[in-house]
Amino acid sequence: MKKLAVVYYSRTGNTESMAEAIAEGARKESEVSVDVEKLENFPAEKMLEYDGLIVGSPTYYGSMAYQVKKLFDDSVVFHGKLAGKVGGAFSSAANVGGGNETTITGILNAMLIHGMIIEGTSNGDHFGPVAIGAPDTRANSGCKALGKRVAALVTKLT
Amino acid sequence: MKKLAVVYYSRTGNTESMAEAIAEGARKESEVSVDVEKLENFPAEKMLEYDGLIVGSPTYYGSMAYQVKKLFDDSVVFHGKLAGKVGGAFSSAANVGGGNETTITGILNAMLIHGMIIEGTSNGDHFGPVAIGAPDTRANSGCKALGKRVAALVTKLT
Amino acid sequence: MKKLAVVYYSRTGNTESMAEAIAEGARKESEVSVDVEKLENFPAEKMLEYDGLIVGSPTYYGSMAYQVKKLFDDSVVFHGKLAGKVGGAFSSAANVGGGNETTITGILNAMLIHGMIIEGTSNGDHFGPVAIGAPDTRANSGCKALGKRVAALVTKLT
Amino acid sequence: MKKLAVVYYSRTGNTESMAEAIAEGARKESEVSVDVEKLENFPAEKMLEYDGLIVGSPTYYGSMAYQVKKLFDDSVVFHGKLAGKVGGAFSSAANVGGGNETTITGILNAMLIHGMIIEGTSNGDHFGPVAIGAPDTRANSGCKALGKRVAALVTKLT
Repeated sequence: MKKLAVVYYSRTGNTESMAEAIAEGARKESEVSVDVEKLENFPAEKMLEYDGLIVGSPTYYGSMAYQVKKLFDDSVVFHGKLAGKVGGAFSSAANVGGGNETTITGILNAMLIHGMIIEGTSNGDHFGPVAIGAPDTRANSGCKALGKRVAALVTKLT
Repeated sequence: MKKLAVVYYSRTGNTESMAEAIAEGARKESEVSVDVEKLENFPAEKMLEYDGLIVGSPTYYGSMAYQVKKLFDDSVVFHGKLAGKVGGAFSSAANVGGGNETTITGILNAMLIHGMIIEGTSNGDHFGPVAIGAPDTRANSGCKALGKRVAALVTKLT
Repeated sequence: MKKLAVVYYSRTGNTESMAEAIAEGARKESEVSVDVEKLENFPAEKMLEYDGLIVGSPTYYGSMAYQVKKLFDDSVVFHGKLAGKVGGAFSSAANVGGGNETTITGILNAMLIHGMIIEGTSNGDHFGPVAIGAPDTRANSGCKALGKRVAALVTKLT
Repeated sequence: MKKLAVVYYSRTGNTESMAEAIAEGARKESEVSVDVEKLENFPAEKMLEYDGLIVGSPTYYGSMAYQVKKLFDDSVVFHGKLAGKVGGAFSSAANVGGGNETTITGILNAMLIHGMIIEGTSNGDHFGPVAIGAPDTRANSGCKALGKRVAALVTKLT
């Protein structure tokens, strides 16, 4: 059984509810087990245990919250060991145009630097799902699609 | 009298109507004359005539339309001559999370490479206004604010 | 037999010689046939024929040359049809810090918007190889690694 | 007398020696007083005391170190109060193509979200200076130029 973690940092609950929708989508892929993890309970070393990692953060000043950045900075001690794993990213933001895309591409860039594999989507939020405020129907369906897409790629690659 | 151009490429009219709202905002600054120009009628050399340049493009595959990129590529023959001018950018897109921020930051990056000066905003669309489909009230007010902001900085700098 | 294209635009020959090194690396994967194609001879529809696409551009004003952007803009007529293919990007630039990373991430973003799959590397130029001027040993070895990596992922995915 | 701070986070000393070169350049502008500050001694509230802020970070996973991100995240309590101040950014990295540009543009994006003003340069490292390893002559001269440029714009704007 392959393993996928959805790791998130959330203060208002918006990013958390996105994480749950992503996990719901991922669980549609029967060959992957899915864990939803608060960042606070997820030391960097746990990244090593998973075949796929989806990381979510609120949009703060156009990039991931520093707590999420710390996860990546801490991961330098096993740099190279995440290569070939599948990644994905999501974000909640206060505004359209307020830095949500740069937050998501920032998380994806960190994953590429680890040698991870990323898949976009030709429908909806192309880099990863964005919620403006509390996730609406559009955001929720993007979250489910991301979960399903990453879980499917994890299955396919291994 | 200082001069500001709002240059845009538009196929559906969405980017065009943003350009008009930006010009309306810019005209609130009485010491700046404002021209609204279709990209098709704006050879790169005309960039040299203005103290401020606001460039708009639809979001296509996460960056400015190739026609807009051609404007910047053509400007290489006078590289260095735009240094110190004020820049701004805007985009219309089909989707939230569809590449509108990366389009705007791509235009701003091209301006920074020319040595131009950029100002963000702490309210609303921080890098520059985004319309999702036809510009709504939110997008229009962001456009007016961008016009006013760039015109005010042009006035202040010279 | 799976198919991979290395498509490039080059004026000085630097991007072209990177394309050749990438093809050399890709040909190490015996189950993939590799074509090296000048952009001028590569209409967008040809993208559909390949399982993997590696696209290279000189760095002009922090993003791909408008000729390369036109390839992506033209591809909108078959939007969705490239989903699941493997992508990669490379660039030659005049300067360190001159926009080469933003050029490569711009190409990768366009691929993600098509629903394509991207793999980074934990060694060297993480997003894709960069040459500063004519490709040196460092750039050439990054090119070979990119070719091999994309070809290996094409093989694995299908 | 206008005030400019060069704030940096450094572990190996490379980012620190860039900060010193930037301050040297800034001090060429006689109407600006320049402070060089370690991030550890610079609580976010101190950002309010300066007319210009130049922030430097090593490149970690393609963006600023989490300690630097925390500075920006902490600044949310006075969001809007930095509007109109002048910003600049710099980074040291292990590699060309290793995320140094995305680190610098990430810092600049955070500044734009605060409503700050940024100036690029048509020469050298366009977004801000990059050192690959210990700063060499090229990096040092880019640092001095950044200091001078930001100090000159601070002078001009006020």
